[in-house]
This record gives sequence, structure tokens and C-alpha cells, in this order.
Amino acid sequence: MKLYNFFRSSASYRVRIALNLKGLQYEYVPIHLRRGGGEQYTPAYTALNPQGIIPTLEDGGRVLTQSLAILEYLEERYPEPPLLPRDPVDRATVRSMALAVACEVHPLQNLRVLNYLKDVLHHPEEELNVWSRHWIVQGLTALEQIVQKVPSRGTFCFGHTPSLADLCLVPQLVNARRFGCDLSACPTLVQIDAVCCALPAFAKAAPENQPDAE
Amino acid sequence: MKLYNFFRSSASYRVRIALNLKGLQYEYVPIHLRRGGGEQYTPAYTALNPQGIIPTLEDGGRVLTQSLAILEYLEERYPEPPLLPRDPVDRATVRSMALAVACEVHPLQNLRVLNYLKDVLHHPEEELNVWSRHWIVQGLTALEQIVQKVPSRGTFCFGHTPSLADLCLVPQLVNARRFGCDLSACPTLVQIDAVCCALPAFAKAAPENQPDAE
Repeated sequence: MKLYNFFRSSASYRVRIALNLKGLQYEYVPIHLRRGGGEQYTPAYTALNPQGIIPTLEDGGRVLTQSLAILEYLEERYPEPPLLPRDPVDRATVRSMALAVACEVHPLQNLRVLNYLKDVLHHPEEELNVWSRHWIVQGLTALEQIVQKVPSRGTFCFGHTPSLADLCLVPQLVNARRFGCDLSACPTLVQIDAVCCALPAFAKAAPENQPDAE
Repeated sequence: MKLYNFFRSSASYRVRIALNLKGLQYEYVPIHLRRGGGEQYTPAYTALNPQGIIPTLEDGGRVLTQSLAILEYLEERYPEPPLLPRDPVDRATVRSMALAVACEVHPLQNLRVLNYLKDVLHHPEEELNVWSRHWIVQGLTALEQIVQKVPSRGTFCFGHTPSLADLCLVPQLVNARRFGCDLSACPTLVQIDAVCCALPAFAKAAPENQPDAE
């Protein structure tokens, strides 16, 4: 298995955690998002992934894109340990938590959006940071309430083992801290993050522990 | 079943198509996104959906949020007709198409983001339209290439029956046209859209055919 990814990309980070939790070995192929105008835009890479985004996973010669689609694939193809509960409503709850990050927060503060705000709309750095903090805090505050509503909560977003929700939460909290977000409205999420980060599968996937970390 | 939604919301539209394709009856509960500062922010609604976004589905007293999580739930709970293929890699391909819209395009041109650009960053209407068109055309152009790469393509995004990918594509094309996007780079998507819109399940779900349509 080959993972085309970047140490700081939170979508990549989600997939690295899943691969580690499931005990799957993979080759790490770094795609530097800023070097040379962005290695994700080279013809060789866009032939694999026409969106010019990361991560991309190759498994047995098949090419998979979009981190959440990759996570669902890993779950179906390598089901142990499970990253989704069994009951359909519970599965929907976990997926809605993951999507609350992946659709409502992350798309608004990724590199290409910040570049557009800076280069096309001419906003200074500080306004970009205010923008990012706004969406991150709004999204995480809602996620905090969703997580608190789970009946008989465990130590993770849902239950007593890591799920897709935690795989999305932890990388998003790295971004939240990088942008200097006030996380006082999200005490449960901060606790869950600490529990996750103490696990080897999460720690090994952390940006600072990747071969291309700066 | 009860669907809290809004005629013009493309996330709502996705779920309406799925319910129709699967032949599921539901009560339509309109949540007007602009009236009275936004009915999605009322305490009664945010008690159901802390994110203050639509759609929300109630099924047998259980509450489900996030359109893609709802679609996966409907697929698991009411599997016929299937909206995902059987093979894990094919499923990942369809999901990646759906996510290419739901994560890369739709979050950037929805109401709350456009409101922020207008109210906080003081951009005039025309710059908002340029912004929306930029992300829609970029995302759909990439999706066009992904769809074209599918081996032995059928008349839909993947194969010969509608899938989650089509359920995300069709509402996004409504938005694309509303913003006046040039879709000349996406001939395959435009063809697929026409095939879908001719189906009663899609037509019945269209914004203009909803009880709250303006």
C-alpha cells in the first residue's frame, strides 16, 4: 500500500491513523503542498488524483481518493478493529460527527481557500486567521454538543474505542491550536483528544512524526 | 419519517432524491434558512441539530444529521434499490465522487459562508458570485475527469443506475446554474444531470417542486 500525503495535511493524518489502528503497513510518499508551486499539481500526481489534493491511497494497484472514502474502504476491506459501530443509527451518528469536521470546518481553512482569500481577495494574514478561527470554533462547538448528547458516553467521541469521528477530530484540533483557537467551549473534545493522542496509532500518525515533517 | 429541510438547500435535495428512489414516504418539515434570521437557529431546531444546519431526518424517533451520513444510513437500513455498488473499491470511487462535491465545492458556496464574506469581510455581491463560481467550476471540472476515468461508464456517474454520486451532482448543478457557471468543461456531468432529472425520483425532489418553494 502507498499513501501519497503530506505531514501537515489533516485529511492525510486521518488516513494515517486508520492505517495504524488497523495494523496496515504502507509506503509513505510525500507530496509537498507548498514546494515548487505545489507538488499536488504536477501532471504525474493529477493523473492519479485529478482533484490535485491529498491524500491518495494505492492498494493492490487500485487508486483511492478523498480521505473519508478511503476510511470507509479500509473499514470494509480490513474490518478489524472496527472504526464504526454496528447499529445503523449509531453508525450515522459517528459519520455525522466525522462529517461535521470534514464538511463544515476543514474545507474552509485549508490551504487553497486561504490562498484565495490572500491572493485574490487581498486579505492580510490576520484576517485569514480570524476567518479560520471563526469556522473552527463554530464547528467544534457544535461537535462538542453532538458528542455530549451521546447516551452513555465513553472516553472517545462515540463509545470506548476510536471511531471515524476521533480520526477527524484529532487532526482538526492540531489545526485549531495552530490557528490559536479558544477551545474553552469544547472541554469534552479536548479530553477525547488527549486520550487519543496517548495511543501509539495516533502518536505515530502525528504530523511531527512523519518523514517529511519540517 | 420526518425530513427537516429547505427547498433550495442542496444537502436537503440529496436526501429527498434518496428517499424517493427508495420509495420511502416522509413528512416534509420546512426550515426557512432566511426567514426571521434563519429558522435553523431556533432553540427548537438546534435541540434536534446543534449545528443549526439542514437537513435533519427523524426515523422511528431517532434523529439523524449530515446529509451524507443520512444517505449511508438509508442505504444500510433500506438497501433497495442500492445507491452504492458492491465492490469495496467501486464503493470508494462513488463515495469519492460524492465527497468531491460535498467536501470541496458545497461548503464554500453555502449561505453562511457567503454571509460571512458579505457581512464581515464586506465583499460586494459580484465578488461573492465570482468566489462561488471559482470553487464550483474547479470542483466540477475535477469531478468531470474522475467520472470520465471510470472504466466502461454507463449513463450515470458510476454505472447504469443512480448512486450517491448522482445524488450530490444534480443539486450542485442547480447551484452552478444559479451562480451562472460556465459548464463547458463538464460535458459528461451535464449529460448525466439530464438523464437523472428525467427520472421521477429526481424530478419530485427538485427545489421548484417542494411545498416551500418560492
